[in-house]
Amino acid sequence: MKVLWVFAHPEPRSLNGSLRDHAVAALEDAGHEVTHSDLYAMGWNPVVTAADFGSDDERLAVGPASARAHEQGSLSPDILAEQNKLQEADVVIIQFPLWWYTMPAILKGWLDRVFVKGFAYGVAHPSLPGRTRRYGEGVLAGKRAMVVTTSGGPGPSLGPRGINGDIDALLFPIQHGALFYVGMEVVPPLLVPAANRLSEDEFDLAAKVLTERVLSIHATDPIPFRSQDAGEYDEQLVLVDAHASGRTDLGIHRRS
Amino acid sequence: MKVLWVFAHPEPRSLNGSLRDHAVAALEDAGHEVTHSDLYAMGWNPVVTAADFGSDDERLAVGPASARAHEQGSLSPDILAEQNKLQEADVVIIQFPLWWYTMPAILKGWLDRVFVKGFAYGVAHPSLPGRTRRYGEGVLAGKRAMVVTTSGGPGPSLGPRGINGDIDALLFPIQHGALFYVGMEVVPPLLVPAANRLSEDEFDLAAKVLTERVLSIHATDPIPFRSQDAGEYDEQLVLVDAHASGRTDLGIHRRS
Repeated sequence: MKVLWVFAHPEPRSLNGSLRDHAVAALEDAGHEVTHSDLYAMGWNPVVTAADFGSDDERLAVGPASARAHEQGSLSPDILAEQNKLQEADVVIIQFPLWWYTMPAILKGWLDRVFVKGFAYGVAHPSLPGRTRRYGEGVLAGKRAMVVTTSGGPGPSLGPRGINGDIDALLFPIQHGALFYVGMEVVPPLLVPAANRLSEDEFDLAAKVLTERVLSIHATDPIPFRSQDAGEYDEQLVLVDAHASGRTDLGIHRRS
Repeated sequence: MKVLWVFAHPEPRSLNGSLRDHAVAALEDAGHEVTHSDLYAMGWNPVVTAADFGSDDERLAVGPASARAHEQGSLSPDILAEQNKLQEADVVIIQFPLWWYTMPAILKGWLDRVFVKGFAYGVAHPSLPGRTRRYGEGVLAGKRAMVVTTSGGPGPSLGPRGINGDIDALLFPIQHGALFYVGMEVVPPLLVPAANRLSEDEFDLAAKVLTERVLSIHATDPIPFRSQDAGEYDEQLVLVDAHASGRTDLGIHRRS
């Protein structure tokens, strides 16, 4: 398989860097092809500006400007390179340390700049007037994604009733709102907690689990997020009462 | 009151910019003092690097390096300037368009770089051994914060059962994991949905509501997030069974 490994840690000799290196070596040994978007190493610019779109509009409206640039082929070369990597990949790994319970800015800005209108969203639905392709019907369908993240906090504090918020809920905007939105099947994330005080044995175990998780990604059931077009949501894209009745937690957007 | 207005939109003539200008004019008319962190206008760098810490460590460990730099006064001047603005403020407004259901990278990188260890987290708890000041006991206690955001999606799609996720859950990492973590009282957010197709009347209403919300911020009940130290969480910082029993949604971290 072709794996795109998106990595957002400033230090290659960090725990995150070591975990990645271990898994990538195993993937390559097994004959898989790995492409890297090592955002710090690339000096990735995470800030959306008019320069992304080759635009000289007096007033920047990001959606329309990005859609026009996508259509006209005037997107900045660094964005086009990432879009090409995504299109070539079968599997996308998104790895980062949790900073303030979400992605580091450099990774958020990879989503902001690469997932432009016309490429990742705002594409007309083939059969539903007024709808766009998204949530199970996105343009990057057929690819699989997995989030790999580390936290300073211990596991229970990121569990279902932990004070920092359940990891699945914290990752909802990334896993559901971005990766699933654009059509990828997202397998459950790998969280390595208490990451600043891992023993050698714990490191070895985490590296082994990560390697196995990536190698078996096509044999792993994806998170069963609901599609926008299976009758589960109404015209307003609100979940109908028949499903997860009475609940309002983010888990309602998964089939049980 | 002294208001710090953190703004993360690339276009001052956007809906977001117009809403801000309207509210700021009203605040100043009423005799309040407004300081700005207009991140795009400032050319804010959102990427954490070793240069933030005046560090020449061979291997960058962000937490320890930032704590040391904070203690030694060697943090980069742009970070110190933002920390000073925060300390001077009574009220902090965080305004941004929802991009991929969370903050634009430039704002995430304001949190990543300004909220360093020793300033915003990792400060020893005065009475609980092994604990740090956070979640209701943070170092910026006494200040109030409010999130102001816009979305392309219509309101119901960001409601309790909307496909994009409930806005309160989407904002949990910002409101609870960052603003409340560091001690601020966070009042309910203002979401302006369907922001790319607002009528003039709808704009006038949104501007009026925003202005009233900011002017009345001290008369508004904050979101009743639970403190880490009121016996509601156990030693592992997991919510005890007596509260919100049987539930695992993010709403369990609010007192009902």
